[in-house]
Amino acid sequence: MLTYEKQEEWKIITGFMQSPIDIKTASCKKMRLSGKNQIHLNYNQQIEAVEEFFYNHIFHSLGQAEIWSRKYDLVQYHFHAPSEHAIDGKKFDLEGHFVHTGKNGQLAVIGVFFTIGKENQAFEEVLLKMEGKSTFEVKHIMDFFPENKQYYHYLGSLTTPPLTESVEWFIFKETKEISLHQLKRFEKIHNCNCRNLQPEHARLILDVTE
Amino acid sequence: MLTYEKQEEWKIITGFMQSPIDIKTASCKKMRLSGKNQIHLNYNQQIEAVEEFFYNHIFHSLGQAEIWSRKYDLVQYHFHAPSEHAIDGKKFDLEGHFVHTGKNGQLAVIGVFFTIGKENQAFEEVLLKMEGKSTFEVKHIMDFFPENKQYYHYLGSLTTPPLTESVEWFIFKETKEISLHQLKRFEKIHNCNCRNLQPEHARLILDVTE
Repeated sequence: MLTYEKQEEWKIITGFMQSPIDIKTASCKKMRLSGKNQIHLNYNQQIEAVEEFFYNHIFHSLGQAEIWSRKYDLVQYHFHAPSEHAIDGKKFDLEGHFVHTGKNGQLAVIGVFFTIGKENQAFEEVLLKMEGKSTFEVKHIMDFFPENKQYYHYLGSLTTPPLTESVEWFIFKETKEISLHQLKRFEKIHNCNCRNLQPEHARLILDVTE
Repeated sequence: MLTYEKQEEWKIITGFMQSPIDIKTASCKKMRLSGKNQIHLNYNQQIEAVEEFFYNHIFHSLGQAEIWSRKYDLVQYHFHAPSEHAIDGKKFDLEGHFVHTGKNGQLAVIGVFFTIGKENQAFEEVLLKMEGKSTFEVKHIMDFFPENKQYYHYLGSLTTPPLTESVEWFIFKETKEISLHQLKRFEKIHNCNCRNLQPEHARLILDVTE
């Protein structure tokens, strides 16, 4: 019996909003992409620092995203192969995570899927950096992002410890390409740095579409 | 050593964003109240249901709040005496919590402080309902809210089990009044249903001011 007199017995219930998940498109709630819920990106080319952390290279970089009329500051980006999220059970070859903080400390991550195709100029610059060859700039940073900014949105978590919950996820529906050679070079450095799919627990997932 | 092979060993770290907190106004980040981050309330007078839950009466009611250009649906409201949040160490006689869900399932609570003064018409209707005397309407529901909608904003938690984290808190700076007789009647039903103050853990707290 929980009481106000013995508050130390209260436990925080958690684990119901973990990421990544399999996004089942048929059960998404459709929302019209309008002026109010668009995503606008304005990222710097400069890399502030590169950190090796938890089976990944973390690219600390600055910039702004405006999402749903809220301003977020880019903190870092990194990549997972294969993708962590899935769409209707389908995984992709690579997933980029662009991690932001909001004005109130809220975490927001923009996710981009990559499939095998032509070489990606931005990923090439990042790969060269991981291979110890490059400068501190990603000149083609916008090559990470699809032109069409339709997205899925849900509340999840970080996908690495401490697995912090209530992260706002924005995952672009349109995929980008990297070459097979680029994927192989990434996998040589980080082989399968992908968290298992987590239960959806009847969360609301928005499909924000034109 | 945490690895991708033994993901079952990863633990969710939590407890760093619990509510209520003492809002220290000197360390708040000031933000200008503008068209973009205003709070607009449009609540129904009708009470859908009253539930007795965890040392409180929960008034299930419908309506909308528009906060920071996002739409939230009112789910329920309830009251704590004394207040749960504090401002610079000062508690208030009563605190109303108006609990909403956002379009993505995000929880948002609007908090209002009440001090002893003249009778509050909306609280009178709610009190009568708690005393088993009234109808299913709170005709003066807007009497719960101050005219000036400046607020504090931070990310916290529910203040009762399951203590779910990453709740968006919006706490009006301007207080409202209830009569001493009204407070005594509430305390006769719920005596001290107030959670202890929780550590701030260096969270960002916004002071959104004209």
